[in-house]
Amino acid sequence: MSYKERITRAAELMRDADIGALLLTKPANLLYFTGASQLCAYAIVSREGEVALGVPFIDLDDVSRRAHFDQITGFNDEVSMLHSISHLFHRFGLERARIGLEYAFLTKSREAMFTHPHSLPPDATSVDATPLVSELRMVKEEEEIELLKGAGRVAQAGIAAAIKAARPGASEIEVAAEAEHAMRMAGAESFYHTYVASGPRTKVAHGYPTYRVIEENDLVTVDLHPVCHGYSGDLCRTFCAGTPTGTQRKALELLLSAQQDAIWKAREGVGVRELEEAMHAPVKAAGLGEHLFGPPIHGVGIEFEEAPLPSGHAYFHGEGDPPPLRSNTVLAVGNCGLYMDDFGVRVEDTVVVTATEPVVLTDYARKLF
Amino acid sequence: MSYKERITRAAELMRDADIGALLLTKPANLLYFTGASQLCAYAIVSREGEVALGVPFIDLDDVSRRAHFDQITGFNDEVSMLHSISHLFHRFGLERARIGLEYAFLTKSREAMFTHPHSLPPDATSVDATPLVSELRMVKEEEEIELLKGAGRVAQAGIAAAIKAARPGASEIEVAAEAEHAMRMAGAESFYHTYVASGPRTKVAHGYPTYRVIEENDLVTVDLHPVCHGYSGDLCRTFCAGTPTGTQRKALELLLSAQQDAIWKAREGVGVRELEEAMHAPVKAAGLGEHLFGPPIHGVGIEFEEAPLPSGHAYFHGEGDPPPLRSNTVLAVGNCGLYMDDFGVRVEDTVVVTATEPVVLTDYARKLF
Repeated sequence: MSYKERITRAAELMRDADIGALLLTKPANLLYFTGASQLCAYAIVSREGEVALGVPFIDLDDVSRRAHFDQITGFNDEVSMLHSISHLFHRFGLERARIGLEYAFLTKSREAMFTHPHSLPPDATSVDATPLVSELRMVKEEEEIELLKGAGRVAQAGIAAAIKAARPGASEIEVAAEAEHAMRMAGAESFYHTYVASGPRTKVAHGYPTYRVIEENDLVTVDLHPVCHGYSGDLCRTFCAGTPTGTQRKALELLLSAQQDAIWKAREGVGVRELEEAMHAPVKAAGLGEHLFGPPIHGVGIEFEEAPLPSGHAYFHGEGDPPPLRSNTVLAVGNCGLYMDDFGVRVEDTVVVTATEPVVLTDYARKLF
Repeated sequence: MSYKERITRAAELMRDADIGALLLTKPANLLYFTGASQLCAYAIVSREGEVALGVPFIDLDDVSRRAHFDQITGFNDEVSMLHSISHLFHRFGLERARIGLEYAFLTKSREAMFTHPHSLPPDATSVDATPLVSELRMVKEEEEIELLKGAGRVAQAGIAAAIKAARPGASEIEVAAEAEHAMRMAGAESFYHTYVASGPRTKVAHGYPTYRVIEENDLVTVDLHPVCHGYSGDLCRTFCAGTPTGTQRKALELLLSAQQDAIWKAREGVGVRELEEAMHAPVKAAGLGEHLFGPPIHGVGIEFEEAPLPSGHAYFHGEGDPPPLRSNTVLAVGNCGLYMDDFGVRVEDTVVVTATEPVVLTDYARKLF
């Protein structure tokens, strides 16, 4: 990975935005800039391109082996962490600087901790660093795309296991068990929440698995988010534990056709809103527009949901409206479902934007009934 | 569960704190007050004891079946969610009220969304609701303790599977796979991150599993957090894939003796700091105080880490210093490790505080070497 280049580009953006340094604590951002993703740790990235890491003192050996940085500090507890940050702010001459914080990651309580006079010098101010970091992370390096491909393959192993397990008599939780086990054995170092929803529960926005037992002919929606070598996959499929109804078949066909339209249009220069419209148009034309729910497009990378975010979501996550797509942006296409009276269907794939044809990283069969 | 009683008590605390209503979006708090835990949903709890829920419109059927509330609204997207909140604030006469928000859960970006004039009336103000909700959730009802017992049993099934899997040649990720699969099959509807750290990695603060392959005689630390029927378990064990060294044996014995002292002292009226000191004292007496890391005590309930939080952590999570323990507070005891030059040991159990002897909910063998 080009950590040096990432830091150099971050420093350029900091100069443009009059930001003196970034104070990062979000594990995904620590991974991006230093190669090591840690809880309860921080990185200060200065506008001169220096990186100072702070970690629990017992992590010093482990992080020193794995991470890229110019200097590292070990701390004993939260108070000594704040003191070490304050010390670094003075060392970097940031007494009057604007410090970039992760407003879309820090809770209000934790933000208060970093803007407290114990850490932030009295004449320094804070500013949201979210758009700056997203600007960098949005376009992937080739090596990142290789890792995203790997995560896509692991997600496919998970879906295959879920389909095999989702027989009448099995609970949603048991289906999740098999999908997660298969992803782990295929190389998932972690995963975000697994969604397994069956029968009437396919009509919910976030279908965490429950004790519900799958019945003959139930639809089942499974959405998986494995993480491999720090990069995420995002893959959703809806299938049937038996024979679907004609209405269910038609709904899946309509949604699939909409999703394929959106995937095909995902190219350099196109806007996220255009992709959203591409996904909505066939469903609206069929008179079912009011049965759609969810923003159809979001970015995928270190996080399974990251910039570019859909415009509604973007605002709530500290991002601006996404710019036209650039090559090597990676998207999940299909993060919206078609929800009828008593069931829902949803299909989602991870796709690399290029100047020509989009490259689909999760190519498991979609038309499963 | 006594949802009605919880709401009544919340209303009393709101009157004491001059809070007009709570606006809750944290899934754990939605579960506590309504019985349904949802992402992208909100509950307004008024000081008159009324509960208004807002959910994605496709979730209306599902949530109406499961949740306790006085009224429910479906929304299409974030903007219509904010409008529905604003409408409810006016309906409840909260134009000039102090509204309790979850400062320890809301990111700064999302907090800005709820304090935006589109949702919060111009003369209303916001205040942190975290301590108020923690005050209620900290003492468990009998039914909650039964569920926590169940989660403890599931954690034990996970540890047993991990110990069986952690043979030389297996990767940390494979050990996590078996622990998680066993927890799912024993009834875990979800789990927080699984920690599996082996060999030199036992000396890290947050040991997420990696591709590292376990070697003969490695120590292995596994920390599990299953969720069953909405309630969490917290169980950590350190064991050996072979024969430990004398130093390792001594470290485990010392830590176990310290943990048992702290568990034995966990009774009504005792302070969290006293328990911390009980856990630190034998280690300090052995001259190894500077090898301890991590706050030894935290609460367990709907979340695997909740109030009472250790004093350092409490500040950063919007909580005050914890009051003396009350009966039916549930604690994890042992959330600190003893970290030597090239290994660490950690042992953690979930314990119910009573007026007399503490009740340990995770009673898997501790002296594993």
